[in-house]
Amino acid sequence: VGIIGTGLIGKEFLSLLHEQLLFLRKERNIDLRILGITNSKKMLLSDKEVDLPHWEEQLEKSEAADLEKFTQHLLTSQFPHTLLVDMTASSEVPKHYTRWLSQGMSIITPNKKANTGSMDQYKEIRQIARKKNKYFLYSTNVGAGLPVIQTLRDLLQTGDHFIQIEGIFSGTLSYIFNNYSSEKAFSQVVKEARLLGYTEPDPRDDLSGMDVARKLVILARELGWELELSQVKLESLVPEALRTGSAEDYLRRLPEFDLQMSALVQSAEKNNEVLRYVGTINEAGQASVCLQKYPKTHAFARINGSDNIVAFRTKRYDKQSLVIQGPGAGPAVTAAGVFADILRYATYLGALP
Amino acid sequence: VGIIGTGLIGKEFLSLLHEQLLFLRKERNIDLRILGITNSKKMLLSDKEVDLPHWEEQLEKSEAADLEKFTQHLLTSQFPHTLLVDMTASSEVPKHYTRWLSQGMSIITPNKKANTGSMDQYKEIRQIARKKNKYFLYSTNVGAGLPVIQTLRDLLQTGDHFIQIEGIFSGTLSYIFNNYSSEKAFSQVVKEARLLGYTEPDPRDDLSGMDVARKLVILARELGWELELSQVKLESLVPEALRTGSAEDYLRRLPEFDLQMSALVQSAEKNNEVLRYVGTINEAGQASVCLQKYPKTHAFARINGSDNIVAFRTKRYDKQSLVIQGPGAGPAVTAAGVFADILRYATYLGALP
Repeated sequence: VGIIGTGLIGKEFLSLLHEQLLFLRKERNIDLRILGITNSKKMLLSDKEVDLPHWEEQLEKSEAADLEKFTQHLLTSQFPHTLLVDMTASSEVPKHYTRWLSQGMSIITPNKKANTGSMDQYKEIRQIARKKNKYFLYSTNVGAGLPVIQTLRDLLQTGDHFIQIEGIFSGTLSYIFNNYSSEKAFSQVVKEARLLGYTEPDPRDDLSGMDVARKLVILARELGWELELSQVKLESLVPEALRTGSAEDYLRRLPEFDLQMSALVQSAEKNNEVLRYVGTINEAGQASVCLQKYPKTHAFARINGSDNIVAFRTKRYDKQSLVIQGPGAGPAVTAAGVFADILRYATYLGALP
Repeated sequence: VGIIGTGLIGKEFLSLLHEQLLFLRKERNIDLRILGITNSKKMLLSDKEVDLPHWEEQLEKSEAADLEKFTQHLLTSQFPHTLLVDMTASSEVPKHYTRWLSQGMSIITPNKKANTGSMDQYKEIRQIARKKNKYFLYSTNVGAGLPVIQTLRDLLQTGDHFIQIEGIFSGTLSYIFNNYSSEKAFSQVVKEARLLGYTEPDPRDDLSGMDVARKLVILARELGWELELSQVKLESLVPEALRTGSAEDYLRRLPEFDLQMSALVQSAEKNNEVLRYVGTINEAGQASVCLQKYPKTHAFARINGSDNIVAFRTKRYDKQSLVIQGPGAGPAVTAAGVFADILRYATYLGALP
């Protein structure tokens, strides 16, 4: 295994792996070796196994990063299966996926970029993986550790008929609308969410809805749709006038738009409803991300904190949807989801589940 | 593949399989052949493949059932992997599992009996499966097609720390308490549920709570506990005086106990709460099934129809649980869940996921 990316999720993953490695060897008969760790600056290589407890110091002292040398090191190792784990959010790293797969490496990643780029690239990755009998796994792309993508696949592959997927796919926007009411200014809730670390440093990265649109594209493509990101009908929550300029400008001027939002939430409250920022794909072939009203008794109205929630409506789960709910972002649950993908990969290679 | 059991779930499964077989061959490169179908009376064998569209007529005309001959037929076939699908609810069939595994067959089943029998048998099945490198899959044992057991496994195997599992595991009891209030007699709701087909012919089979207790035992054993069914603290909803006698006697005399239940629901409603019949296992090692009160805002209070709901609380999903909700019983979703297990089994043997 080679690890690319040592940010929050990468660090969490390496520490989790260190904790579980002995269990995997003893109880599951899975011999998993980290032969390399790289980030954009440095690269640590080992012929036998990276010394996990000390990877940070050793990476610090190691040679300059070189992705070509990194993958060659893995490919020329003595071990039978080679796996790359892309822990970056980079759009550069996924450009190498097709080459890496064609060289015989499998790929596991929480990175959404490969699955939301062009359909051509999307198809090419799958064609090469199939041709070379290698694996490309990304269950954490939607909902992090929540079983969203696998559940959708199970439904489709067992012949269920898709009707609709509807969900709150952004922990940030979940938090914001779970805390917003007519008693508070919207700008105030955004600022609080930012202070608590729920938003990106520039909250517009969340409020643009682009991340939700990416998740819809990923789910729609699992359904077999040839959907591009640009085709998602996206209602941005960033006022037109504030889309350029610095994050500070945005936050300073946001109160100018409080009244507009306040009118919306008041009209919802009058009908015993709440506002939720929801992504939907339906059997008519539409994908949309927008602000919607739900009765207070609806499942989407009663979520907590930064919970994600996804409701699958299919022929089998029609009157009563299949619903999955829980924290859908953050280093701990994402790293664990990547780890679960690695264990699935091990079962594909023959380890007992 | 050999199919044992042609009741509601077995029939549904065979029809689903027939629909999907071509897709599996063409799109997934999975060549799955039904070489035999048996129930307790008759047995249909084929060297190449059972004629799926006409299995019912052919089974009717076929030879007398003989499990020994049935499994020998599968074992001496020309195909590389042999899978038995036990679609019965029998406690006899699972007695053969260890022998079948040791003969080199894998087993997939929605039957809960093997997993809720003695710990000795439970361990033996797993030891033999491991020794022979065969698979024993039963994801439908809890929640039918809902991803309950796999989600628990993913959490545990990636090193999460278990705190509590709490859930409404019976569709029947979910329906009953979703429709019960102080405005109705409990006996009336039970009778309605029976008329609508939500209960077993003898509703006591549901109201005893035994089926919920079985599901807790299965989940607890996934956690590594050595729990026997008799150790679950079980609050039966069948009044002591009505536990013997016919189903008709039970239904006739049930109104005598309406006041008792009515006192409970009234005290709940006074506090803005509802009654729910809930199974819980917690980190103190306790497993219990009992009637509990939940605030009307709680997720368990707002489920619909006969929904199941399961909340996993772990170190990673602590303040906000991971929640799975939806129909958790019935032939369509159960047959689909068994089919999903078969597709997982195919990936273990090398098919791409």
